[in-house]
Amino acid sequence: MSNPIVVEVTRGQLVESVHRGAFAVADANGVLRMQAGDVERPVYPRSSLKPVQAIPLIETGAAEAFGVSDEEIALACASHSGEPMHTTRVAAWQERIGCSVTDLACGAHRPVHEKTATEMIARGDRWTPLHNNCSGKHTGFMTLARHLGAPVRGYEEIEHPAQLMVEKTLKEMAALTGDLPYGVDGCTVPNFALSLTALARAMAQFADPRGLTPARREAAQRVVRAMTAHPELVAGTGRVCTNLMRQSPGLVAKTGAEGVYIAIIPSLGLGAALKIDDGASRASETLITGLLIALGALSDDGAAAALARAPVPNTRGVPVGDAARGLRCGVSSAWARAGRNSRRP
Amino acid sequence: MSNPIVVEVTRGQLVESVHRGAFAVADANGVLRMQAGDVERPVYPRSSLKPVQAIPLIETGAAEAFGVSDEEIALACASHSGEPMHTTRVAAWQERIGCSVTDLACGAHRPVHEKTATEMIARGDRWTPLHNNCSGKHTGFMTLARHLGAPVRGYEEIEHPAQLMVEKTLKEMAALTGDLPYGVDGCTVPNFALSLTALARAMAQFADPRGLTPARREAAQRVVRAMTAHPELVAGTGRVCTNLMRQSPGLVAKTGAEGVYIAIIPSLGLGAALKIDDGASRASETLITGLLIALGALSDDGAAAALARAPVPNTRGVPVGDAARGLRCGVSSAWARAGRNSRRP
Repeated sequence: MSNPIVVEVTRGQLVESVHRGAFAVADANGVLRMQAGDVERPVYPRSSLKPVQAIPLIETGAAEAFGVSDEEIALACASHSGEPMHTTRVAAWQERIGCSVTDLACGAHRPVHEKTATEMIARGDRWTPLHNNCSGKHTGFMTLARHLGAPVRGYEEIEHPAQLMVEKTLKEMAALTGDLPYGVDGCTVPNFALSLTALARAMAQFADPRGLTPARREAAQRVVRAMTAHPELVAGTGRVCTNLMRQSPGLVAKTGAEGVYIAIIPSLGLGAALKIDDGASRASETLITGLLIALGALSDDGAAAALARAPVPNTRGVPVGDAARGLRCGVSSAWARAGRNSRRP
Repeated sequence: MSNPIVVEVTRGQLVESVHRGAFAVADANGVLRMQAGDVERPVYPRSSLKPVQAIPLIETGAAEAFGVSDEEIALACASHSGEPMHTTRVAAWQERIGCSVTDLACGAHRPVHEKTATEMIARGDRWTPLHNNCSGKHTGFMTLARHLGAPVRGYEEIEHPAQLMVEKTLKEMAALTGDLPYGVDGCTVPNFALSLTALARAMAQFADPRGLTPARREAAQRVVRAMTAHPELVAGTGRVCTNLMRQSPGLVAKTGAEGVYIAIIPSLGLGAALKIDDGASRASETLITGLLIALGALSDDGAAAALARAPVPNTRGVPVGDAARGLRCGVSSAWARAGRNSRRP
C-alpha cells in the first residue's frame, strides 16, 4: 500500500508532479485525532526532534546554571538561517560557557538566508560552523555536557551522556520502550526513528504537559514559551516555520529535513507530525499549513492560503493564476484530498 | 495504481525517503523495449524537449543561413550552467544575428554553476537573462524567427511560427496527432505534454533516423553530433548530463525540470524517457544512470556507479559507507527493483 497523494503541483492543464505522504495528529494519551497514510512506519524526525533534544538542557538544571535565556532556548530548538541575529547570539552563548566555534561538531554550510550569504561573499568572508543551521542545538549539547561534568568533545557521539538523555527523553515522551533505530543526522548528531503516531504523541506532551513529571513539565513549557516568543530565531527571515508561528501565536511549527514537519498546538492540546515520502520540503510546508487550517489552528486568511498554495513562477516572475494561454502554475495543497482518507476515532 | 519505487534514499538502518516514477525505452517504430510504471500518462518533457526544439532551427536552413556552429547547436539544446564558456558564446551568437540580451524572453536567474555565481557576487556583477540556463534555446528561436522573416519579439508565444514548428515537429517525431496539452515552461516558452512512450519514441528518431525525411534526418543527426561533441556546453562543469555523455561517447543524456530525463542511444537505436512522480532531480539522475547501465549503454565502472549511488554526506563531509555506528547514507538506485516490474515485448 502506498501513502496517499497529499500535494499536487500543477502546470498548465495538467498535474505535473505529486507528493505522497502520511500524517498523524494525536493527543497526549496517544489517541489519534486525524491521520492519513502509514503512520506506523518508523521515520527520522530530523530537525523536528529539536524541541525534544532541548528538554535535558532545561530539565537537568543546565540552562539555569549557565543563565541560558529564552532566546538561546529558541536557538537550541532552531534550524536557523545563519543570519547575524542567529550567529551572534550563538557565539555569545558559547563564550559564556567557555566554548567557541572550534568546539562545534557540525560542519560549516552556506547560510540558509541568501542575503546573508551574498553579503558574506561580497565581503570575502567564509561561513563557519556557527552558520550551520544546527549550531544552537549543538551549543545546547555543549552546555549540557559542561553541566554534567562530561567532556564537551564527543558530545555528538551516541554514547555521550547528552545523547543518551535525548534518547531516554524521546522514548518517555513518545511512550516507547526498547532501542530505537537511529541514523546520523546531517549535522553529525544521532537521530532516532519512530512512527508518526509516536512522534505526534511526543509533541502532544508539549501541548498538554499535565502527564509529565513537574521538572519535565516545566522544561516542556519553557521550550514552547521560548519558541513561540522568538519565532524569528527558530528559523529566520521569510521562513515558513517563522511565518506560521507569527500567524498563530502560541503555536509551534518545526520543519525537519527530508519532508518532515511537526506542530505543537497548545490551544487544542494536540501534536502533529508528517512526513513526505520523497523528502520534499515544498510539500511538507504545504501540507503542514493545510493541516493546521483543517484543525482550526491557523486562520484560512490570505497569508496562510498563500503558503497552502504557493506559486511556481517562471523566471520572469509571471504571476500565478489563470493567466493568458492557460498558464496555471501552483503547488496546490491537497490536504482536503488527504482529509478524505483521514478518520476521527 | 501508483508507479513503482525507483529510487530509495537510505540513512542509518532505514530507508528514509523513496521516489516513485515511470520509464519507457522505445525504438524508432515505437516498440517498447523496457518500461515501468504508467508510461501512457502525459508528462511535460520540460528541458528534455530541447533536442526537438532545435530541429526547426536546422531543418529550415536557418542554422546554415546564419552560420550557426555545432557549439551553438549544443547550446540551443542546453540547460547550461551559466559559466563564461556558455554566456560568452550565446552573446556572440546573438550579436551575429543582430540581437542582444534584451531580446531574450526568459528572465534572469543565478548561474547554476556556483563558482561563477560566487565570483560574480564578489565582483559586484548581476546575472542577466544570458545566465538563464535556457538562453541558448531562446537564441535558437530568435535565429529561426530572423530566418522566417517573423518578428523576434514574441518568439515565446504559442502562436509564433517558431513554436508552431516545434509542436508540429514533436508530433511527427512522436507519431502523434491532434492538439497536445501544453503549459508554460519556467523560461516562458510553451512546453507540450505527451506520454513517456511517445517521448521515448521521439528520442529514438534521433538514435535511428532512417524513417525521417532527408532534411529532418540531417537535422536530427546534427543535433546528436553537436551535443555529443560538446557535452560541457549542454550542461556544465560537474553536471550529470555532461558526465554521462563524456563517459559514453555518442550517447545523448538530457535532463528536464521536475524529474524528467531522456537519453538518445544511437549504438542501440533506442530512445529513453523517464519521469519521477515528485519531480526530484536527485532521483531522475540516479534512475537514468541505472537505466543506461541496465541497457548496456554505460559501463558499470566506478564513475557511473557513483552516479547511480550518490553519497549523502553530512556537513562534515563524512564519507559514505558502513562507517562507525552504522552510518550508511546514500541514494541507492533501485532500478533493479524497477526492472522487476519491467517487461520486454
